Amino acid sequence: MPELTLQDARVKIDALDDQIQRLISARARVAQEVARIKQRQGDTGDHYRPSREAEVLRRAMARNSGADGGPLTDEVIARLMREIMSACLSLESPLTVAYLGPEGTYTQAAALKHFGDSVTVRPLGAVDEIFRDVESGAADYGVVPVENSIGGVVTHTLDALVHTKLRICGEVMLPVHHHLLSRETSLASVGTVYAHPQSFAQTRKWLDARMGKAEREVVSSNGEAARIASEKGGAAIAGLPAARLYGLNILASNIEDDPGNTTRFLIIGKQDPSATGEDVTSLVATAHRNQPGALFTLLKPLADAQIDMTRIESRPVRGSPVPDFYFFIDFGGHASDAKSRAVLDQVRANAAFFKILGSYPKAVI
Amino acid sequence: MPELTLQDARVKIDALDDQIQRLISARARVAQEVARIKQRQGDTGDHYRPSREAEVLRRAMARNSGADGGPLTDEVIARLMREIMSACLSLESPLTVAYLGPEGTYTQAAALKHFGDSVTVRPLGAVDEIFRDVESGAADYGVVPVENSIGGVVTHTLDALVHTKLRICGEVMLPVHHHLLSRETSLASVGTVYAHPQSFAQTRKWLDARMGKAEREVVSSNGEAARIASEKGGAAIAGLPAARLYGLNILASNIEDDPGNTTRFLIIGKQDPSATGEDVTSLVATAHRNQPGALFTLLKPLADAQIDMTRIESRPVRGSPVPDFYFFIDFGGHASDAKSRAVLDQVRANAAFFKILGSYPKAVI
Repeated sequence: MPELTLQDARVKIDALDDQIQRLISARARVAQEVARIKQRQGDTGDHYRPSREAEVLRRAMARNSGADGGPLTDEVIARLMREIMSACLSLESPLTVAYLGPEGTYTQAAALKHFGDSVTVRPLGAVDEIFRDVESGAADYGVVPVENSIGGVVTHTLDALVHTKLRICGEVMLPVHHHLLSRETSLASVGTVYAHPQSFAQTRKWLDARMGKAEREVVSSNGEAARIASEKGGAAIAGLPAARLYGLNILASNIEDDPGNTTRFLIIGKQDPSATGEDVTSLVATAHRNQPGALFTLLKPLADAQIDMTRIESRPVRGSPVPDFYFFIDFGGHASDAKSRAVLDQVRANAAFFKILGSYPKAVI
Repeated sequence: MPELTLQDARVKIDALDDQIQRLISARARVAQEVARIKQRQGDTGDHYRPSREAEVLRRAMARNSGADGGPLTDEVIARLMREIMSACLSLESPLTVAYLGPEGTYTQAAALKHFGDSVTVRPLGAVDEIFRDVESGAADYGVVPVENSIGGVVTHTLDALVHTKLRICGEVMLPVHHHLLSRETSLASVGTVYAHPQSFAQTRKWLDARMGKAEREVVSSNGEAARIASEKGGAAIAGLPAARLYGLNILASNIEDDPGNTTRFLIIGKQDPSATGEDVTSLVATAHRNQPGALFTLLKPLADAQIDMTRIESRPVRGSPVPDFYFFIDFGGHASDAKSRAVLDQVRANAAFFKILGSYPKAVI
């Protein structure tokens, strides 16, 4: 860029803002037109399309690393484009999204990341309330945590997925950072550390090395840990939202053992997103119990077709007289493509219980 | 717009998104260039300019109601443009903003409305902590509530303004809606209503008419009211953030007696914003005590110059042996314009104590 003066730069920015806003308004008008087309076609449901949104964001990411890319990070670009989409979509049909509250939790952050700010949110107290809320229509979509890269799966969510009529229609990946929060100003003053069991699991090495002598007390959530530390003293392991919420000092930042620590959330709803070319299919199945190598038989069709299995988790079947397990399987592909369909048919044929939980776009960022 | 198909509409939106993102990236590059220019000029402070930001948003509002305006509301357009500005500014210099916490409060909403999402926030427990944080440099700016259109002034803020070296460098107006929140599902089941005294003041008529028999119990904040209602039963008067935070039902919406109910917040910092043509000047003065008609003498220069006085509040001077008052006066104009300067000189000449608290852009929306 040639030598600019501050005045030149401001004139340039004003001109850019003019154009940006004109285009955002034009986009909003097209969104209204889309709503009218759908109305004429008798399509009066919600107008959120997970596949379409994923495609729009993937384009944005591709542009940001391409020739026209700019200095803003992919995260910031995704957030800005998401907010513009969210504002335009709310002109078509305002969405209600239920998530695992209270505010300040990672699930709230995931809901905002996925749906933007122009939605009505319903923070609820438990995972099964979120399923009920979406089933009853009180919310259009729900956001539930399902898996953490160190601490493992969120069992309530898996259990609810087995029995619900809802579909998984999206996933959100959220990088998670843990901090040690306290009213104290030094590590040495901390006698007890409060945390959710998963947070302890994710910071074990750091705690052993730096806080080996402190008591560890398990509590029900990160937010609860922070509240206790703010009232009773000691320290909590939690994220920045909790530090803000309770005005605690950050004694140590990013204490997670694995810096690539992410939490995965699922979007649950009533629709089946169409294929985008980068999709995930989730299923749950049980093997026939009285067959030796039953799990092997169940998985063989996936292996044979060289399908990329991204996750397998087992959960005991409650109330079963003999040990029996639900297997939760994720693989890359969409239930509507020929290869996946053939494999799903074979898995179904070998299973005692079989259910497709959803085919949905892979998380964009 | 001519008859479009959904496919046409999507192609159009993709093309618009391409252009929007290219322009946002271009804007970010100019912001980086601005940072480099300032660095060469030895200007290494924060690069937030309240006057410039107000001008940018005023242009955005004018565009939205002009020929190129679109279907998005002024509020939504202001939020989107604010977020784009905020993201670009954070490339120049990341800002830290202290505000009156906890999360879910109106002051947090005011901070986000004014600074956007790309800032580091510090929620603090008391107004004077925010002043200290900005004075010490721990935060670049502070956001404090100062006035509510029904419930009156926030006295801690006025008291702190008298003694601080900081300047007022902006104001934020936030429409405030009160709701009746409860675990119960009907008004009839509510025996006690919890609220901050200002919230009671703002909903008195509604409460008298609809909840005449319920006990009213004063608590320290709206958030505290909601927490109590979520734990002990009864109902709280609070905003949507608190309903979300504690997962309470909304038994009645917008119960404020005056639907134009707004809260005013001040941005405090170390800079003196330049004039924008639509500015407010705030001052505090005491009259000479032993003169009859002292307040009249103090205000006369403003009246004579036909200056638009938008606010006057009095606060007792603590520790004074005889009754004495600080008068907080706001008027339309900037301390640097000739007319205001002349008037300020006259007020100063008549005052026992005189201090300009700041000249800053009038709130845009």
